[in-house]
Amino acid sequence: MTSPLDLAEFLKLLAVMLGAAKLLGLLAQKAGQPAVLGELIAGVVVGKSVLGMIDPSHEVFRLLSELGVVILLFAIGLETDLAGLLKVGAASAVVAVAGVVVPFVLGYLVCLMMGLDRIVSIFVGAAMTATSIGITARVLADLGQLHAPESRVVLGAAILDDVLGLIILTVVSGLAAGDGVSASGVARVTAVAFGFLVATIVVGRMILPPLVRLVSRVDHPGTPTIFALILAFGLGWLAHEAGLAPILGAFAAGVLLVGSREKHDIEQGVTRLGHFFVPLFFVVVGAAVDLRSINPMDAANHKTILIAGLLAVAAVVGKFAAGYAPYWMEANRPLIGVGMIPRGEVGLIFAQMGLNSGIFDAGLFTSVTTVVMFTTFITPPLLKMLSVPGESHEAAGIEDLVDPA
Amino acid sequence: MTSPLDLAEFLKLLAVMLGAAKLLGLLAQKAGQPAVLGELIAGVVVGKSVLGMIDPSHEVFRLLSELGVVILLFAIGLETDLAGLLKVGAASAVVAVAGVVVPFVLGYLVCLMMGLDRIVSIFVGAAMTATSIGITARVLADLGQLHAPESRVVLGAAILDDVLGLIILTVVSGLAAGDGVSASGVARVTAVAFGFLVATIVVGRMILPPLVRLVSRVDHPGTPTIFALILAFGLGWLAHEAGLAPILGAFAAGVLLVGSREKHDIEQGVTRLGHFFVPLFFVVVGAAVDLRSINPMDAANHKTILIAGLLAVAAVVGKFAAGYAPYWMEANRPLIGVGMIPRGEVGLIFAQMGLNSGIFDAGLFTSVTTVVMFTTFITPPLLKMLSVPGESHEAAGIEDLVDPA
Repeated sequence: MTSPLDLAEFLKLLAVMLGAAKLLGLLAQKAGQPAVLGELIAGVVVGKSVLGMIDPSHEVFRLLSELGVVILLFAIGLETDLAGLLKVGAASAVVAVAGVVVPFVLGYLVCLMMGLDRIVSIFVGAAMTATSIGITARVLADLGQLHAPESRVVLGAAILDDVLGLIILTVVSGLAAGDGVSASGVARVTAVAFGFLVATIVVGRMILPPLVRLVSRVDHPGTPTIFALILAFGLGWLAHEAGLAPILGAFAAGVLLVGSREKHDIEQGVTRLGHFFVPLFFVVVGAAVDLRSINPMDAANHKTILIAGLLAVAAVVGKFAAGYAPYWMEANRPLIGVGMIPRGEVGLIFAQMGLNSGIFDAGLFTSVTTVVMFTTFITPPLLKMLSVPGESHEAAGIEDLVDPA
Repeated sequence: MTSPLDLAEFLKLLAVMLGAAKLLGLLAQKAGQPAVLGELIAGVVVGKSVLGMIDPSHEVFRLLSELGVVILLFAIGLETDLAGLLKVGAASAVVAVAGVVVPFVLGYLVCLMMGLDRIVSIFVGAAMTATSIGITARVLADLGQLHAPESRVVLGAAILDDVLGLIILTVVSGLAAGDGVSASGVARVTAVAFGFLVATIVVGRMILPPLVRLVSRVDHPGTPTIFALILAFGLGWLAHEAGLAPILGAFAAGVLLVGSREKHDIEQGVTRLGHFFVPLFFVVVGAAVDLRSINPMDAANHKTILIAGLLAVAAVVGKFAAGYAPYWMEANRPLIGVGMIPRGEVGLIFAQMGLNSGIFDAGLFTSVTTVVMFTTFITPPLLKMLSVPGESHEAAGIEDLVDPA
């Protein structure tokens, strides 16, 4: 279906993708929006909807953009302090669980109501669950609120529901592969997912330190980063062999390297690679959006638009409600709820996977990606409204990568 | 011809390529050889000759490895100080010119003698011309000889003959595309090549500084690097549109950014990307080598082996003779000549291009890559023999990338 690319054409398209992502990312930031929104719009511009330059189903772009997600999830893993997460305590946990359950159920019900198939409805519900840690962290940092108690709860919950989202992704892909929906099936896949994570982390903690010591004795620049990538790619492949999503393996590789002596160097190298690869993912996702299917002038689109509208309400209400879950806590609950609203990479991964596996048709794919873009779009102004001005904190580390401009 | 890859398989093969490159690169260094030799051997191991895991003709690996060369040439451009080169003076220039002309003529004559076609002979001669700046710089740095006068001559000449090699590459590809060999044809392509370089640098010097100032005002990590990559990819495409090799455009982009305020940041980002992409090029080149075609037990290979042997003599003698070209200079001439011997990326690019365009058959491709590997292999011990022990200098910058381990 896709024609072979020569090097010159490949270079031109890469320049166009990176240039559009950078330009619209910067414009989005100037407009007070996260850069990732600009990158998605860049994809819409260069993709199917407008210019038609980028074919998102071309093997090379598909693999490069998926590599972008692998690198992104590895980087998120690298920032995930499991021990610290446990300390953040009950508030983050209940916000995370409520913020996963309520949007899942609401999204599922909306789809059933609209007459969609159960598997499809579960997939859509799952796509509603994960808050984008990158967008939330970045916006809170920009507002100088990174160290407010509400922000800690939101960040802890966002990290936690990324993990929950990845497990749900695995469960749901297993179900979508034809296992049907049964309590035992869900339990089995959940057990495999948790088992893989736990086994990887336990075995890794034993095997890795001597390996890392060996690698750190190699006095050649870039060695720790390449070693880390080999680990991330290898565990990604292993996760797939165990029936899980490859990104779960990459995430586990990041978590394993959190405490390593070489972490700073790995982080730098991976961030630099991410500046190149991660925007390609968002551009390719945007390129797959077909705006014609939400053109309200065309009656055939009314169902897509209606579903998108209802899902958007479900997505916002579901997370907002989660902000009230830690009922014992004295806090600015609306701020917590709104902080959980933006969906991002995990939701888009669901949408892309739904489209690739044929579970979503083009209309439903567009509905879900539109909802993700909508939640990303409304959060920054809402957070600005709800927060009290605080001192400015420097935005450090991961959000550069999750949200590069 | 190539089957589609899924993400898990792609991750596995990337991990294998990077792991093999890293491991054999380190082993090569332990054995006193440049890491790039280990990476080529890694390619031989995972490619056609031994394990058969990597198909070097698969579109994704072809494009990723070619992207590696583009990034490498951009990085070399970034280290090319045109003004400084002019100051290095006549010695470097005559060594460069003699070191291009003598091996070219010798290689051409060897091929004609062996009954090969004229175009094929020109292509082989061209592949003999360019000294690998990376290997030479790295070895001299390892020997603590980077600032000896002989080393300066060698380094200046190696940079210069990379540029000459790139122009020859363009001339030769133009000829290979069916323009025939005519003085006017050569003059025209040479004029276009020089014209493109000069026009790019003149126009770029005018347009770029305000653009760079604009970009440097964007306070977001990674922006200068992405801007630089867009420039490199864009000029690469433009070079192709002008009938030149894309890598010439990437090289020009590097030269244009030499004096920019953001150079350090760009260099860091590009080096990090290079740690990932550049070894993929060497592994893919190695993977295309078919050792069975130099198996001396098989009489059918005797011609390939004979050509490789004669070309190896031509390659060594041609560059060694060039060391005597600056006849007025008091210097360790054998050291200069030996310093010019290692061929590398440009020679391999010729071989790959010869194979892809059908000008080389598998046997000749193997002969040429074998010669490149041979020159890379013999230089470090010869240099060590000829040099006097000097104080140790730190190897900085580009050779990390050209020769990562």
